[in-house]
Amino acid sequence: MTSPGLEHFYSVIPAGGVGSRLWPLSRADAPKFLHDLTGSGQTLLRDTWDRLAPLSGDQRIMVVTGRAHRAAVEAQLPELRDPNVVLESEPRDSSAAIGLAAAILVRREPDVIIGSFAADHVIGKQKKFAKAVTEAVSVANAGYISLIGITPTEPATGFGYIHFGAPHEIPGAPSARMVDRFVEKPGLETAKSYLDEGSYLWNASMFIARADVLLAQLGETEPELLDGLLQLAASWDTPTRGAVVDRVWPTLKKVAIDYAVAEPAAAAGRVVVIPGDFDWDDVGDFASIAKLHAGGRKSDLAILGEDARVLADSSTGVVISQGKRLISLIGVTDIVVVDTEDALLVTTTANAQRVKAVVDALKLSGRNEVL
Amino acid sequence: MTSPGLEHFYSVIPAGGVGSRLWPLSRADAPKFLHDLTGSGQTLLRDTWDRLAPLSGDQRIMVVTGRAHRAAVEAQLPELRDPNVVLESEPRDSSAAIGLAAAILVRREPDVIIGSFAADHVIGKQKKFAKAVTEAVSVANAGYISLIGITPTEPATGFGYIHFGAPHEIPGAPSARMVDRFVEKPGLETAKSYLDEGSYLWNASMFIARADVLLAQLGETEPELLDGLLQLAASWDTPTRGAVVDRVWPTLKKVAIDYAVAEPAAAAGRVVVIPGDFDWDDVGDFASIAKLHAGGRKSDLAILGEDARVLADSSTGVVISQGKRLISLIGVTDIVVVDTEDALLVTTTANAQRVKAVVDALKLSGRNEVL
Repeated sequence: MTSPGLEHFYSVIPAGGVGSRLWPLSRADAPKFLHDLTGSGQTLLRDTWDRLAPLSGDQRIMVVTGRAHRAAVEAQLPELRDPNVVLESEPRDSSAAIGLAAAILVRREPDVIIGSFAADHVIGKQKKFAKAVTEAVSVANAGYISLIGITPTEPATGFGYIHFGAPHEIPGAPSARMVDRFVEKPGLETAKSYLDEGSYLWNASMFIARADVLLAQLGETEPELLDGLLQLAASWDTPTRGAVVDRVWPTLKKVAIDYAVAEPAAAAGRVVVIPGDFDWDDVGDFASIAKLHAGGRKSDLAILGEDARVLADSSTGVVISQGKRLISLIGVTDIVVVDTEDALLVTTTANAQRVKAVVDALKLSGRNEVL
Repeated sequence: MTSPGLEHFYSVIPAGGVGSRLWPLSRADAPKFLHDLTGSGQTLLRDTWDRLAPLSGDQRIMVVTGRAHRAAVEAQLPELRDPNVVLESEPRDSSAAIGLAAAILVRREPDVIIGSFAADHVIGKQKKFAKAVTEAVSVANAGYISLIGITPTEPATGFGYIHFGAPHEIPGAPSARMVDRFVEKPGLETAKSYLDEGSYLWNASMFIARADVLLAQLGETEPELLDGLLQLAASWDTPTRGAVVDRVWPTLKKVAIDYAVAEPAAAAGRVVVIPGDFDWDDVGDFASIAKLHAGGRKSDLAILGEDARVLADSSTGVVISQGKRLISLIGVTDIVVVDTEDALLVTTTANAQRVKAVVDALKLSGRNEVL
């Protein structure tokens, strides 16, 4: 079964990253994208697939993931066919993941436009998302690297921002703006000023570009990385793939696509952003999950877990239960309780960002069995 | 093996009461007295035994407990012999438990003086405790009902108080005071005034009296209950015990010994109190446990559990772990985390008294499997 999609458009889903700030829910063997964090009844990966299938067609979605996750990914995505699975021997960051997908696809289809979307973000308002992607594909068609940025709704300090400049006339992309520069996660006061200025968008790591344009840009900044990816791609659909992977993969430079492609391209006036005013969250920590489920209200207790049994009195925050134990909360506010078989986390939404430090401490102390 | 003790003195340990405010640690099948809550390495029951054995001799300690706890009690107390075990068919409150012990012992030994001490309290300074008991036995010898009250060290609102009056001259009991009246758990302001006045003691439920005096007092207030206890006692060391228990036990009135004996006796000028200035706590809730372990400091995190694995960052309060799961706390203060196989409690020391309400809610909802 195929479904029609935007012309030349191919979706790429990099499904990597453990999501350390969501430990002990997210683990090496159960990363964030394999969880249902929205209560939708399906994993974030499946949500991502369902969002992209109408845009590219479900036979035109490539998933880049770790070897260890192959079975879990395929169980989530029964429509996924072998040529659309790219398995990483080991993680080499986003330039390698997305660049390899681009390099493989451009050999199969020289005019291909790829759109890369994280496997573990939450997006609401499918129609507005689809409209933004459609505009971004028009931008990509015109030879630019296109981003979709999210119109901020609050002075978030957990996201990077895109500063946009003048409108840019591109057929089919009425809301296109030139990207002026990228800024890292700001402090609260800076984030407030961004919100006031109205010329900043959240960077949602959504890249849409012709594969050849993306690769050319990558080659300007990271020629050796591009060379490695081209070697891999040349062998990918041949019997020599295994040998080339063994030789080349370990040499691939680890670099985020933001640094290797987006920033230098923006500096050269080659990046355009489409503002998206749909709901979006990277669900980066437990505070995000609490917020997602509370619909913005502070007085709620969000409960996640199929078999969760929670008895709460005067308590707010989020409880994530992976077992069948009775969880009783009394008079704890903005609490985060994550109850898994071998590890229990108790913190508060205000401390949600500090979870990663605990994971790092566990790594250092060699307690990898719970990571 | 016997050890010498105070003349005529027999210790009685009523080992009943689940300790609902310590759920899910304390359960119907694992009541408070079977736990090590002090980190001493042994249960509160065993601590109690070890405290009393030098005073009465270890062959003169009677334990009154539920049938279900017989094996656990005997495992804790290998010195305990059959004639010193009184098993309750079902709990009938403290007048029945202590009254039955008195009625059985007085038949065996008419001059016996019994001292009743809860199985699940924490006491420090054994020498001072022994001195207070020795004085109390002298008081009992003189025909009074004697209590040991604890000199308050703070305006506690979780204990009942004893208001004492004039000194009372009794040979061997230089610190004896007449008991004026009993007061229920006070509010904080009232508790502060008690502390200032200096004529109030904490009621630690320590009764010392000649068994015949205690029973006579009980008969004045609760003649039917006394009659039932005397029938039980008459059959206790005979083959008819089983039949009498089956017939009489269900008819025993449930009434606390404070109401049936101590208050009416005090009103009649028959109760004397010995002030004890040793450390004492009824360990009534998790806040008590946190306080016990922190030695009064608010900045500490107490960790209980043989196999506890806790990783804490900027957290205070108490963690009780019955499993081997890794428990991670981040930025939670005055927290109470109790991690058992089938139930998890998360609350704060300030909410410790509310734990009982949760237990009541679980009972009402029929979830007895976790109680």
